[in-house]
Amino acid sequence: MSVAKAGEFGLIARVIARLPVGSSALLGPGDDAAVVKAADGRVVASTDVLVEGRHFRRDWCTAKDVGHRAAAANLADIAAMGATPTALLVALCVPANLDARWAEELADGLGEEAALVGASVVGGDMSGSTTLTVAVTALGDLQGRSPVVRTGARPGDVVAMCGRVGYAAAGYTVLSRGFRTPKVLVDAYRRPEVQYGAGPEAADLGATAMIDVSDGLLADLGHVAKGSGVAVDLRRDAFEVPRQMRDAAYALGVDPYTWVLAGGEDHALAATFPEGVALPPRWRVVGAVREGTGVTVDGKPFNGPTGWQHF
Amino acid sequence: MSVAKAGEFGLIARVIARLPVGSSALLGPGDDAAVVKAADGRVVASTDVLVEGRHFRRDWCTAKDVGHRAAAANLADIAAMGATPTALLVALCVPANLDARWAEELADGLGEEAALVGASVVGGDMSGSTTLTVAVTALGDLQGRSPVVRTGARPGDVVAMCGRVGYAAAGYTVLSRGFRTPKVLVDAYRRPEVQYGAGPEAADLGATAMIDVSDGLLADLGHVAKGSGVAVDLRRDAFEVPRQMRDAAYALGVDPYTWVLAGGEDHALAATFPEGVALPPRWRVVGAVREGTGVTVDGKPFNGPTGWQHF
Repeated sequence: MSVAKAGEFGLIARVIARLPVGSSALLGPGDDAAVVKAADGRVVASTDVLVEGRHFRRDWCTAKDVGHRAAAANLADIAAMGATPTALLVALCVPANLDARWAEELADGLGEEAALVGASVVGGDMSGSTTLTVAVTALGDLQGRSPVVRTGARPGDVVAMCGRVGYAAAGYTVLSRGFRTPKVLVDAYRRPEVQYGAGPEAADLGATAMIDVSDGLLADLGHVAKGSGVAVDLRRDAFEVPRQMRDAAYALGVDPYTWVLAGGEDHALAATFPEGVALPPRWRVVGAVREGTGVTVDGKPFNGPTGWQHF
Repeated sequence: MSVAKAGEFGLIARVIARLPVGSSALLGPGDDAAVVKAADGRVVASTDVLVEGRHFRRDWCTAKDVGHRAAAANLADIAAMGATPTALLVALCVPANLDARWAEELADGLGEEAALVGASVVGGDMSGSTTLTVAVTALGDLQGRSPVVRTGARPGDVVAMCGRVGYAAAGYTVLSRGFRTPKVLVDAYRRPEVQYGAGPEAADLGATAMIDVSDGLLADLGHVAKGSGVAVDLRRDAFEVPRQMRDAAYALGVDPYTWVLAGGEDHALAATFPEGVALPPRWRVVGAVREGTGVTVDGKPFNGPTGWQHF
């Protein structure tokens, strides 16, 4: 059944029926607004939008994949402040001929990804549009912590990273060349695996700055460097290129470090810590903060694209 | 300069520079997420999306008008819960050839409307898209009140309304027939005048149910009737059709009660109150809650369209 046939209110009812309600939702979907717990008297909030043809393709990703990705992009932003996500709101714009099941499966993906952190979809809106668009807002709870912003990095800090980089970009390149394997790369593009818990963990460890790597490590650390008025130098040998990525890069004629250093959408967390902090194993030291400006690799500018622009 | 030439980060910087920061914004735009006060340990949140060609036309409304409308639609949802808005987040999808000034003026409209209630734009996202789309999320503070939901109306309650109805629908009809006057109607369509303070006021007066009239009074009271398991009967003589609306209706061959009873987007607030509550003058009693189901006018079904669907 097309969304036009299901009708706006019919489709909303079908979608709401599939969504689990999380423990932070004091009032879930169905009213003018939702009510969500904000236990420490503050709420963290972030919005990200996915547009068909720019951020996803329906022939590359299932609706459920898109739901996972849209949720992950937003939940990672909450984690990157040192907070725990509590809720999602979703504005969905759909072509009239879209199968209503696509919207339902999108909701399943959003709900499942949110459930990984105990959050849930608490509200949203739907409209017709010629362009399939998913705009998500995530809310989160700092649980008494100070937010970890982009402006706090200081010369002498170490730069560390938690999570994968380059996988989603490699998967995107593989798909855009018409291939469907290696599966590990394509799956990483379809559904990022985000270390959400590492965000609050980094805050508790005294991270001086933190960012969600969504535009690429060089671009995002560039935001940290600019915001903090410092330079960041990465060590190329801190980034191991896994075998399947190396093989795919060789087959496709790509420098795999372009994926690793400039590829976004794995939603790794990058943070700066005071020198000497004992980091748990999932955090890898990949560089250092210096006096100066800009981001370098082994002391030199990186020779390649540095991140994604969305126009 | 086109948005493509300004670039994603350039345009974001230009827009952020124009946005005032409200007192509830503990951390405003520019980081992974914003941090907003939620003083009573809860946050109210709602999302509404406006799509060009469906919710607005660039030849009918300035960018600033669209900003006002997009903000108003969301802020009214917060008010309709009995809460005071604190913050907006905005996802903006723009065609590459859009003039960057359009985005800047949109931000001005969003910021000005939010400032009416002491709120501000705290974050957002931007993407290219073939369809100009503005998705807004509003946050609000219940200040210790219980949220006023749609499910609390009881037989014997009075139905009251605060704000205008029919003006925006009349203005839309006027514009769609190629006219630009009467100004009062066209302006009402371009920038709704919402009685935001009436939301918390109604909650404090003991409102049993409340809703933002965005789909039309009959449709929205239908949501209250269905949610509460009651019937709502409106008195036609409670709705005075102002002269300019009556004249426009006559000239265009429209029943003005279709605008008043089925027209959305003025964002009036409709609420139910226990019988005998003394209401301030801006609240007008327009009907009563009965046992039963559905919405009637003078005891009979309304003979005309009952509201807007968005596909």
